[in-house]
Amino acid sequence: MTDTRYGYECAPWELRWHTLDVDALPRTESAFALSNGHIGLRGTLEEGEPRGLPGTYLNGFYEQHELPYAESGYGYPEEGQTVVNVTDGKILRLLVEDEPLDMRYGAATAHERVLDFRSGTLRRVTEWSSPTGRRVRVSTERLVSFTQRAVAAIRYEVEPVDEDLQLVVQSDLLANEPIESDTKDPRVALALKSPLVGEFHHATDLNAVLVHRTRRSELRVAAAMDHQIEVDNGVHTHIHSEEDLARLTVAVNVPRGGRLRITKFLTYGWSAQRSVPALRAQAESALAGALQTGWDGLVAEQRQFLDDFWATSDIEIEGDPELQQAVRFALFHLLQAGARGETRAIAGKGLTGPGYDGHAFWDTETFVLPVLTYTMPDATRDALRWRHSTLDKARERAAQLGLRGAAFPWRSINGAECSAYWPAGTAGFHVSADIADAVLRYVAATGDDEFERTHGAELLVETARLWSSLGHFDHHGQFRIDGVTGPDEYSAVVDNNIYTNLMARRNLRGAVQVCGRHPEAVAEFGVGSGELDRWRAAADAMALPYDEELGLHPQSEGFLQHAEWDYEGTPPECYPLLLHYPYFDLYRKQVSKQADLVLAMHLCGDSFTPEQKARNFAYYEARTVRDSSLSAGTQAVMAAEVGHLELAYDYLAEAALTDLHDLHDNVRNGLHMASLAGAWQGMVAGFGGMRDHGETLAFAPRLPAQLGRIAFRLTFRDTRFEVAIDRDHATYRVLAGKPLDVLHHGDRVTLTTEPQRFSIPKIDAGAAPVQPPGRAPVRRDATKMRQFGGWRAEHS
Amino acid sequence: MTDTRYGYECAPWELRWHTLDVDALPRTESAFALSNGHIGLRGTLEEGEPRGLPGTYLNGFYEQHELPYAESGYGYPEEGQTVVNVTDGKILRLLVEDEPLDMRYGAATAHERVLDFRSGTLRRVTEWSSPTGRRVRVSTERLVSFTQRAVAAIRYEVEPVDEDLQLVVQSDLLANEPIESDTKDPRVALALKSPLVGEFHHATDLNAVLVHRTRRSELRVAAAMDHQIEVDNGVHTHIHSEEDLARLTVAVNVPRGGRLRITKFLTYGWSAQRSVPALRAQAESALAGALQTGWDGLVAEQRQFLDDFWATSDIEIEGDPELQQAVRFALFHLLQAGARGETRAIAGKGLTGPGYDGHAFWDTETFVLPVLTYTMPDATRDALRWRHSTLDKARERAAQLGLRGAAFPWRSINGAECSAYWPAGTAGFHVSADIADAVLRYVAATGDDEFERTHGAELLVETARLWSSLGHFDHHGQFRIDGVTGPDEYSAVVDNNIYTNLMARRNLRGAVQVCGRHPEAVAEFGVGSGELDRWRAAADAMALPYDEELGLHPQSEGFLQHAEWDYEGTPPECYPLLLHYPYFDLYRKQVSKQADLVLAMHLCGDSFTPEQKARNFAYYEARTVRDSSLSAGTQAVMAAEVGHLELAYDYLAEAALTDLHDLHDNVRNGLHMASLAGAWQGMVAGFGGMRDHGETLAFAPRLPAQLGRIAFRLTFRDTRFEVAIDRDHATYRVLAGKPLDVLHHGDRVTLTTEPQRFSIPKIDAGAAPVQPPGRAPVRRDATKMRQFGGWRAEHS
Repeated sequence: MTDTRYGYECAPWELRWHTLDVDALPRTESAFALSNGHIGLRGTLEEGEPRGLPGTYLNGFYEQHELPYAESGYGYPEEGQTVVNVTDGKILRLLVEDEPLDMRYGAATAHERVLDFRSGTLRRVTEWSSPTGRRVRVSTERLVSFTQRAVAAIRYEVEPVDEDLQLVVQSDLLANEPIESDTKDPRVALALKSPLVGEFHHATDLNAVLVHRTRRSELRVAAAMDHQIEVDNGVHTHIHSEEDLARLTVAVNVPRGGRLRITKFLTYGWSAQRSVPALRAQAESALAGALQTGWDGLVAEQRQFLDDFWATSDIEIEGDPELQQAVRFALFHLLQAGARGETRAIAGKGLTGPGYDGHAFWDTETFVLPVLTYTMPDATRDALRWRHSTLDKARERAAQLGLRGAAFPWRSINGAECSAYWPAGTAGFHVSADIADAVLRYVAATGDDEFERTHGAELLVETARLWSSLGHFDHHGQFRIDGVTGPDEYSAVVDNNIYTNLMARRNLRGAVQVCGRHPEAVAEFGVGSGELDRWRAAADAMALPYDEELGLHPQSEGFLQHAEWDYEGTPPECYPLLLHYPYFDLYRKQVSKQADLVLAMHLCGDSFTPEQKARNFAYYEARTVRDSSLSAGTQAVMAAEVGHLELAYDYLAEAALTDLHDLHDNVRNGLHMASLAGAWQGMVAGFGGMRDHGETLAFAPRLPAQLGRIAFRLTFRDTRFEVAIDRDHATYRVLAGKPLDVLHHGDRVTLTTEPQRFSIPKIDAGAAPVQPPGRAPVRRDATKMRQFGGWRAEHS
Repeated sequence: MTDTRYGYECAPWELRWHTLDVDALPRTESAFALSNGHIGLRGTLEEGEPRGLPGTYLNGFYEQHELPYAESGYGYPEEGQTVVNVTDGKILRLLVEDEPLDMRYGAATAHERVLDFRSGTLRRVTEWSSPTGRRVRVSTERLVSFTQRAVAAIRYEVEPVDEDLQLVVQSDLLANEPIESDTKDPRVALALKSPLVGEFHHATDLNAVLVHRTRRSELRVAAAMDHQIEVDNGVHTHIHSEEDLARLTVAVNVPRGGRLRITKFLTYGWSAQRSVPALRAQAESALAGALQTGWDGLVAEQRQFLDDFWATSDIEIEGDPELQQAVRFALFHLLQAGARGETRAIAGKGLTGPGYDGHAFWDTETFVLPVLTYTMPDATRDALRWRHSTLDKARERAAQLGLRGAAFPWRSINGAECSAYWPAGTAGFHVSADIADAVLRYVAATGDDEFERTHGAELLVETARLWSSLGHFDHHGQFRIDGVTGPDEYSAVVDNNIYTNLMARRNLRGAVQVCGRHPEAVAEFGVGSGELDRWRAAADAMALPYDEELGLHPQSEGFLQHAEWDYEGTPPECYPLLLHYPYFDLYRKQVSKQADLVLAMHLCGDSFTPEQKARNFAYYEARTVRDSSLSAGTQAVMAAEVGHLELAYDYLAEAALTDLHDLHDNVRNGLHMASLAGAWQGMVAGFGGMRDHGETLAFAPRLPAQLGRIAFRLTFRDTRFEVAIDRDHATYRVLAGKPLDVLHHGDRVTLTTEPQRFSIPKIDAGAAPVQPPGRAPVRRDATKMRQFGGWRAEHS
């Protein structure tokens, strides 16, 4: 039985879909997207149509457009960037006796697509009857190679079912596909309408190449394809190229019982610098490598890569099969987003869709990189090298804003600020502390001294300089950071946001420490001893407002004196609030779009007592509406810490299912990487209770009643280990590497390859806090879920 | 001798200019603009070119355009409005023996223009030699009639100087003149490029009419002209009309010693409702009236109107002739802006230029209407009737923002919000309290019970409702108004701005009182007793933050804890700051663009002790950069109150000379009405010490050493009286009407037609406060000024 609400079948290692709901295609294209962090292909049908958005994305490849302002201001970014759908090589069109295979016509008697988390491929089987009754079975499998980052490949097979058939397959490279844009801004729409200017095309034998560049950003892309054709009968092929199209046409008569198999190898090269011949050569050489490896070789490499990944990163869950699937789906897509980015950004949507214009946000450092740090640390290193590569732009931005050091952008593809609404963009300075935090975490988790010296130190020093110039000592000697925006986007331009101040403090102290470890950095970056003293003093005097009377931390100064939002008077259809109420009203009331102080309590938990955490958590629970997909994972973590395990479970499920259940009704534009990361956070930091803000990695495992057992694998300082948690005990075991000291519920223990079992102390958290009316997470009932989802073996 | 810096000669009752500096034309066009509040004509040369901006404006006549947002938000206004240059009837082109009179060619041997504050006309004499040496003397005089509001008239005379000459005059009505726009927004530029669509044209005999409408706002305008021609010889005339042009051509041979005189009568009618025939008829009937009155009659009516105005409103100044001229210039232009507005807005620039898109702001109620209230109260009544006529739009806006009552727009022509940057627009809710304040002041000053009943009560009730819903009682019982923007535009979205809270309190109490006086209003507007109680309670519990430790009022909560601006490190060329620093940095530091708390201390002076005023004034002086033209007048008033009379004098001069000295380098776009009003405020509320926030009108006169005597005239409750102030005494005298009780330095006195002389108590204010480096007002030295300016009789 298929879960008829969401369309996906429940299975532990794959995402399977076997209805043909044309309206649902756009969101399945995001879920079925393949990527290696370098190239991304949306999960469109091979025949190109019907489809939502075609979507072939190259990391760092964008078009520029003017940002319009009815009332402009100093320092407003003038140019926006938006991800571009490049030359589409996914297309293989099929004519069955002159009738095009199109799922909107004729009849599909079977249709199934499977994203396989272990093979790293997307498989499809379609049985289709043409309007005149000719039946074919089309089987495809495709991959975007983790091992050969410029390469994608598609195996395409057609079998006549009832009779001999003439089949014609057209395999395209298609540039400037017409797409519908959601944007209302005519300038953005124009920029995206036909973004590529043809510069070169060539076709010969079974291969072709197209080279284009964008009009304004002047980035160049080469797309190349080659083919292998396997069929018994004589085949007629023709290849052709023009400015925006290269096409291999294959015509053949296939008898009943026979099969046409085409393997398409597809490569991309892009650059802001390289010439047309150089990029053409780059794409064609990648093609040569792919052909040499061959389809079977690529598939085998892919499987090996994923076997390694799961061996280090898997999370097992007993008691909730749908959650098991969702968490593996999340890990698979996080891997896809980060695996081969290699000094390019990890965007908010990865490479799965055009949402957020393809921009990277603080999401990456705060939500995605912690996952990668403990599962695939090289991906974290590479993502931080991207930030490092944009330091010049961040320094220019800081100087433009009258600040020292580096001010990283709120949203960007190339490192330049693209946020056109400064109270929610520029003022969100915490992104720079989030980057510093990710550097500190990565270095602590890996001991990568080389990275710290070559990249980390400069990032820490320049962001510390930002904070030092952004804050000031008031007449009581407190170090205040005024007029900034914290994580909660329903508050803006506030004084002493606790999250921001705590993260800035960590940033300042981290910079002091790195200068101590790397005296050459002190010299190289011109850090004076007066500067180090000021950082220390600022960190020590950091303002952290606390309301003694209420016994609460305000998320920012004055927050607790603001009016309450009228939650009772807000009907369900008026969420998300920002679409129905003005910013001015949201900003001045006690309503949080997302975890803000609660995120501070997670990431900087050592700055709060357990009693403060419990009180604060309950207070903000009643005022957090979760209009942001960034929130549920953090709420899961803190709910677990303060002992509300069922609530944590509900939040974790929400984070994990955000995309599979399309909770925000926008998954057609791409997956929410931070929410997928929130699923891992909910498991590892929530039920595992992992914290990394102390000297020693700490765990405080505790399961909700619904789950029988969970187990997760992490890597810390080259030691790979597993934490398995059941009702009353946690079992730790080193899988590879040296013994490791960790804390279990506050007790130091040394992990070895021998499993060690520790009991879990009880916690009585009292009554669960309440959320605003209608904003509680869906109460998760795994038993009930199984009725919908269930194992495919059991139900279909 | 002419003041070579600014070009204007100093004279007590006129503004004279007799150089020909083509580059200076744009700003003289604003200073020489004629208007009656209904129609405005910029002071362009009759021949049309050279010119800055042609500028014919009709109050309330605008075009709409889309407001673009790179990132939009709920409640953002979608349509902007911008004043339109309508059909230009000022043009009379002259051909002298086939050479067009153009000041850029040939040679002007004499050129003088005079704006006469008593005749209410703009006169011009030009002696010009054509490139081939033909000399003519052109004398013109024009007026926009105060008595016939749809009428303007131009007398145009040409005399050959050396020889008989053939003269051809073309008198135009010209629509869609090409103008250069400052805007960077292509949509606004497009809206203004050719805004008028021709609907009707007709010409016969010496008269013609054109009817147009705007493309998007669908407003219709009819412009009509008729002529009288006086010349000895035979004259050939021809009249012609087409869609965008009507032209009377007059050709005649004029002998040396002879003269061609053309009197052009020009009328306008406009409407959102009326048809083409109706509007044509309206313009033509106004024309018939003008012709019947005739040129001499119009001139005589104009003189009488101005005699009456000066008799009730003049300010005399001894000791500073340039200031005398500037203050009369200010009064004259305030009269022009407000005289015949009649339920249309008084825009920030009046009808003198396209600056601020022709929008009206809070400037009107807070700065301009107090002047008109005591000099021409009917103009205040009419301006408030305009606000009343927009109540439906203000109620809709409040509802859209989730508020009750009426939220008046930050900037508008037709009453709908046009501000595209909400932190400085929508959040400036104080505009609604400013309107309420103007209602209360007008009613108190006039006793116009009829207006209070028909218009005032509803304005007060609906604005009180706004405040009641905008604020809330916190857990200490204080009534807080959070997240709003006060007068200072270098702070935004702050909590408990004292100016806003004090004005809201006055608004709430005024509404309670008006409901007491007009029980029918209670019923008509559905005011419940619970509502009245809440208004009273909110007013009584209004939060007014005060820092006991520093002994200062923060202009808004938290202001005193913010970082200081680095004034020392800000070079002069970096002012105004908003063009060189980002909002985020301005907002979070102790820097004020303009008087904010200081304005509160002026308008709500009874809420501060004298000691608080002195301390606060000194504190904010050091942090107010006066990047706004709204500030100097208020600083003059408060400097005088706390006893810094020389500083007050400097500020007063700055306010009075803002436009004549083009201090903000933008007078080409129109005059600053609020700054002109600031000149009156500086005299009357500053040196006169007038306050109207108590039961009884209060004066506390005191002169700076530089001025020998000042005298001003006011009207209060139908009593016209004069206050004359010299070094040690003030003399009060009723000029017409009943005796009047006022306060003189706190003592109640009854004024009668007998002059009464009271001594002025000494004040020792100690050392004058300092301003940020480079931002002190120019030290005024009237002796030195006289060298530049001086009386024309003495120097030229």
